[in-house]
Amino acid sequence: MEPVSLALVGTGDWGANLLRNFANLPGARVVAVCDADPARLERARKVVPQATAVSDARALLDVPGLEAVVIAAPAAAHARLAKMFLEAGKDVYVEKPFTLDVADAEELVHLAETKQRVLMVGHLLKHHPAVRKLKSMIDAGEMGDVRYVYSQRVNLGKVRSDENALWSFAPHDLSVMLYLLGDEPVDVSARGQAFLQPGIEDVVFTYLRWADGRMAHAHVSWLDPHKIRRFTVVGSKRMAMFDDMEPSEKVRVYDKGVDTRGDDFVDFSRAHTVRQGDIWIPKLDGAEPLSLECRHFTECVRSRATPLTDGRDGLTVVKVLAAAQASLKLSGAPVRLDSLVEGKAS
Amino acid sequence: MEPVSLALVGTGDWGANLLRNFANLPGARVVAVCDADPARLERARKVVPQATAVSDARALLDVPGLEAVVIAAPAAAHARLAKMFLEAGKDVYVEKPFTLDVADAEELVHLAETKQRVLMVGHLLKHHPAVRKLKSMIDAGEMGDVRYVYSQRVNLGKVRSDENALWSFAPHDLSVMLYLLGDEPVDVSARGQAFLQPGIEDVVFTYLRWADGRMAHAHVSWLDPHKIRRFTVVGSKRMAMFDDMEPSEKVRVYDKGVDTRGDDFVDFSRAHTVRQGDIWIPKLDGAEPLSLECRHFTECVRSRATPLTDGRDGLTVVKVLAAAQASLKLSGAPVRLDSLVEGKAS
Amino acid sequence: MEPVSLALVGTGDWGANLLRNFANLPGARVVAVCDADPARLERARKVVPQATAVSDARALLDVPGLEAVVIAAPAAAHARLAKMFLEAGKDVYVEKPFTLDVADAEELVHLAETKQRVLMVGHLLKHHPAVRKLKSMIDAGEMGDVRYVYSQRVNLGKVRSDENALWSFAPHDLSVMLYLLGDEPVDVSARGQAFLQPGIEDVVFTYLRWADGRMAHAHVSWLDPHKIRRFTVVGSKRMAMFDDMEPSEKVRVYDKGVDTRGDDFVDFSRAHTVRQGDIWIPKLDGAEPLSLECRHFTECVRSRATPLTDGRDGLTVVKVLAAAQASLKLSGAPVRLDSLVEGKAS
Amino acid sequence: MEPVSLALVGTGDWGANLLRNFANLPGARVVAVCDADPARLERARKVVPQATAVSDARALLDVPGLEAVVIAAPAAAHARLAKMFLEAGKDVYVEKPFTLDVADAEELVHLAETKQRVLMVGHLLKHHPAVRKLKSMIDAGEMGDVRYVYSQRVNLGKVRSDENALWSFAPHDLSVMLYLLGDEPVDVSARGQAFLQPGIEDVVFTYLRWADGRMAHAHVSWLDPHKIRRFTVVGSKRMAMFDDMEPSEKVRVYDKGVDTRGDDFVDFSRAHTVRQGDIWIPKLDGAEPLSLECRHFTECVRSRATPLTDGRDGLTVVKVLAAAQASLKLSGAPVRLDSLVEGKAS
Repeated sequence: MEPVSLALVGTGDWGANLLRNFANLPGARVVAVCDADPARLERARKVVPQATAVSDARALLDVPGLEAVVIAAPAAAHARLAKMFLEAGKDVYVEKPFTLDVADAEELVHLAETKQRVLMVGHLLKHHPAVRKLKSMIDAGEMGDVRYVYSQRVNLGKVRSDENALWSFAPHDLSVMLYLLGDEPVDVSARGQAFLQPGIEDVVFTYLRWADGRMAHAHVSWLDPHKIRRFTVVGSKRMAMFDDMEPSEKVRVYDKGVDTRGDDFVDFSRAHTVRQGDIWIPKLDGAEPLSLECRHFTECVRSRATPLTDGRDGLTVVKVLAAAQASLKLSGAPVRLDSLVEGKAS
Repeated sequence: MEPVSLALVGTGDWGANLLRNFANLPGARVVAVCDADPARLERARKVVPQATAVSDARALLDVPGLEAVVIAAPAAAHARLAKMFLEAGKDVYVEKPFTLDVADAEELVHLAETKQRVLMVGHLLKHHPAVRKLKSMIDAGEMGDVRYVYSQRVNLGKVRSDENALWSFAPHDLSVMLYLLGDEPVDVSARGQAFLQPGIEDVVFTYLRWADGRMAHAHVSWLDPHKIRRFTVVGSKRMAMFDDMEPSEKVRVYDKGVDTRGDDFVDFSRAHTVRQGDIWIPKLDGAEPLSLECRHFTECVRSRATPLTDGRDGLTVVKVLAAAQASLKLSGAPVRLDSLVEGKAS
Repeated sequence: MEPVSLALVGTGDWGANLLRNFANLPGARVVAVCDADPARLERARKVVPQATAVSDARALLDVPGLEAVVIAAPAAAHARLAKMFLEAGKDVYVEKPFTLDVADAEELVHLAETKQRVLMVGHLLKHHPAVRKLKSMIDAGEMGDVRYVYSQRVNLGKVRSDENALWSFAPHDLSVMLYLLGDEPVDVSARGQAFLQPGIEDVVFTYLRWADGRMAHAHVSWLDPHKIRRFTVVGSKRMAMFDDMEPSEKVRVYDKGVDTRGDDFVDFSRAHTVRQGDIWIPKLDGAEPLSLECRHFTECVRSRATPLTDGRDGLTVVKVLAAAQASLKLSGAPVRLDSLVEGKAS
Repeated sequence: MEPVSLALVGTGDWGANLLRNFANLPGARVVAVCDADPARLERARKVVPQATAVSDARALLDVPGLEAVVIAAPAAAHARLAKMFLEAGKDVYVEKPFTLDVADAEELVHLAETKQRVLMVGHLLKHHPAVRKLKSMIDAGEMGDVRYVYSQRVNLGKVRSDENALWSFAPHDLSVMLYLLGDEPVDVSARGQAFLQPGIEDVVFTYLRWADGRMAHAHVSWLDPHKIRRFTVVGSKRMAMFDDMEPSEKVRVYDKGVDTRGDDFVDFSRAHTVRQGDIWIPKLDGAEPLSLECRHFTECVRSRATPLTDGRDGLTVVKVLAAAQASLKLSGAPVRLDSLVEGKAS
């Protein structure tokens, strides 16, 4: 496979991680980097000395043979940049959050489909071996019916002034929840509070409800004494946990549940039996999620396959984020996803 | 101190715990026990062979010298029983949930005050040495301003058919939150889902907001692979955790926070400093919370002091529960506490 | 099954535990208790009011219908008391350490066999469901060849003046090691130190070697900040851990090992492969080990079966303890088990 | 400060770590690298493209302006290489184990002193902020008298064929123990077993005794299901733990102990009081130990100060290792340190 010629826009902390990964990937060749900050650009050049370095993203359109662009710029610029590169016929990878607006996300999805371009969103955790393991167990029926998923993503630090904890942290959790539970939720409630800066929530609790009664709950915060990165999946046959702070035992599968006979209408306690069984900690593929994600992008560029985390995936996450943001303003009143998009999409 | 003559109504699992504790308490003498179930009553008699055993609570009114009654009957009977004994001039201890209705709780509070009777509610955790420690730190200003508290009370088992996970589990968490944060919240949102039985929520997420922006969040569930009993308290100077599943290291105090200078309007990152300091695990009083609670009741009966967990405390918790229940029906829309009580109190 | 009529000698802390268990056992009837301390005896009588209470163990010989005696007296009295009751035709249960002397242990074993009496030693952990699980896995070949076992039994407190940490703690570990590894070790080394009282070691490290190269190591201490109760078993196919401080996940089985091909004499690294596989936490029988142990004794009395923890088991443990004690005096020089018994046994 | 011109001998896994650290250090300039393996040498050149690359260490003597040499070659070559460079007037850093022989270590120490050269040994953990914290607490008297230290360094993997687990792992533990306890132990016992390769012990237990009764114990293994890196320090006033597997809470200080009054000769239990107090987790300097170690070497080269981990430190560790190895052969019989050196030193 011929390496994919790609450019990176935005070489901040996360952009630098992407750069390191793409630079080490046999399937990729970083031919250009872009950053408005000269110091960052200089730092990036040390990693890829042979790459063209520019301060304005538009200059990338002139780079000969450029096939794909990786966008790790501030979130507010995602939509504009992605649109420019898709229109120029490039394949595009956009970091999370995909966009800050549902209409923008819809436009990008539409544009990528029209132009038959690869559009991938940086929902890193869907590429995590632990999440892939949970998904494969669910698909194989080993969990039974998945009733609900909840997550905690809390720590102290990385207080941001340009986006709240919901938009900064929750895309990770929401993308996993949507992946594991499938299809779209009906409505979303969110509550939270801004303690450090007016209008920038530090702590947000988000609840998602599906039409058939399934649900999910995400707790995100950057003002917390603990460092927790944890998902719990409750199925009718088994339950499971993914704890990303565990160095090696990241997934636990519990043979636990409440079995309902449902045929005893007289004695409730005879109708339900609590089952406490073995616990199983599967050995996972040890590859780094970010490395897997970068490789997946280059493979999709070459094979023209639809990425696991494509634009539609990004759109759904943005819809849930937008609904949660609207619910925050309504003090937790539920906001339907189908109420968001009227008259906004092109 | 002369032992308090008391009777116990309801000798189920939890009633049996109360019986064992009061029977071992030098300050109490259990002179009567009451249960409609003959087998339970027989089991209780083995613990207090000298006590009068009756199947109807009204018969306790004839027990000579009876000073106080401990009510551990099903929640639906709490209001009726407490009212009967208060009117008969007895001091009364009621298990949680205090009542199932705000108006009932208000009536009992009013009655106890009119009759000058001790009325105590079984909010066990407020008597827990860990919670007392947190409260004393907050009162001493060691935590700074307490911004928010959140809790998890989840496990597998004890599925109930007479009340949902909110009414069964959350009184513990709410009583602690109200104790640590002080005064009453303004509104409450709750969302949850019933998986095992129609209309009986197995999982409930409850959010409380105070007028000045403080908040609290409680996650309760009896359909979860983990057994978690944990509170996190986030203050402006320090943060703390109370983990009741830890055998001895139940409280951790974190010298962590984000310090805001607030005088740098140009550079946000210079205006906030993350502080990661020492962690401190204080040695706690090793006494059992239930034993402390039972002793507190007898001491209040003798001293005529107002209990730490008095009827007003019970009333506030019932108001929050009722608001949460109303919000559950509204899919998370916020319910104001002051909307609950109009025209209901006597 | 007719309940076994038994007497308890020694009603201290541990004796009180045994009393509570035998008193609740349908297969046992505690007909007499003995203690030289009047306060303890009085406390014991409250548990078994119908039992005869005596201050001198010889008086038990006059109790009509007495079948079995449970000895929880100080260790120094074990041999004398056990001998007296065996000679009187009683079945006997002796707490650990069985005796303080190899010759005494041999005499008791011989006496029990001659008299055809049940002689059981209180090696509690061999009755623990976690240890039974490990043993059954080993017997089924699931661990491969068991190469070694090591344990830690450390905490702060319970400093004793009548025996050192070796004799007080290690009988538990040694009985499990002998059970899991089978047959007798060849020699024993031990080192340790007395910090709090002259001549009473607070910390002891004991190493056992078997003829075929298998080994075991026990670390015991009552002067340690941690509370650890943990065994690790290393087999050629699997490895396992039993952690008795875990509330429910007491056993972990690791599909880990180093696989040796042994056919590559050129490149060492090609001859060994590290295998890091799944981890499995089996659900265990939830019964209390002490309750299982007490029931086992009464069942052996009725069925005349040889107890799992019989006198020979006790003798082997005493031999290892005596060898370790001798090695302690020799600053760790190995002491052979077969060097202990010359000319001492009858 | 002018950067130190240095060369690195040996660019295997650990040598590559040293190279990366010295290359990033402002106080150092790596002017030459040496490895007999062309592939490794090529890999090293990518990190320091401007450095001279040689396959024979003797060629380094011709590098102009070379001040210091870092030796990360196989242990068997340490003595020969260090001697060559010291004699040539270079300052020398030698990885652990310093040498495989006491006489070699003594010769190097003598040579460095005669030539007034800096000689530093790679006892990494003495530069660890956690160990420095423990040492400063001990020196400040906060621990009371340090009675004993024990460690576990076990995991699965990295089976070596050129040295056993004692020589491979224990230098880390021994250097810390000697640092914390001060001066030299009197004798050493060790026992262990070779399961995977004849004569190469996979598991070794080592016990050190000091003249005044203090002691230390190290358990090392590369055939273990757990990954443990833990020290426990027991002082008369406080106890402490250093757990290097903890991501941030690496040190715990326990206000625990047994206080001995010693004036009650009648009642033992009145003479000893168990103290269970607070636990404290100090915030540590977050710097990487290896980076601190490398900087320390360059600073000593410039300032001519004696390194924290100098040749004498290395010599003592080698003496303990040699005594332990001798004790292994004697099945645990104690070997005195002063028995090792007679007639061997120059």
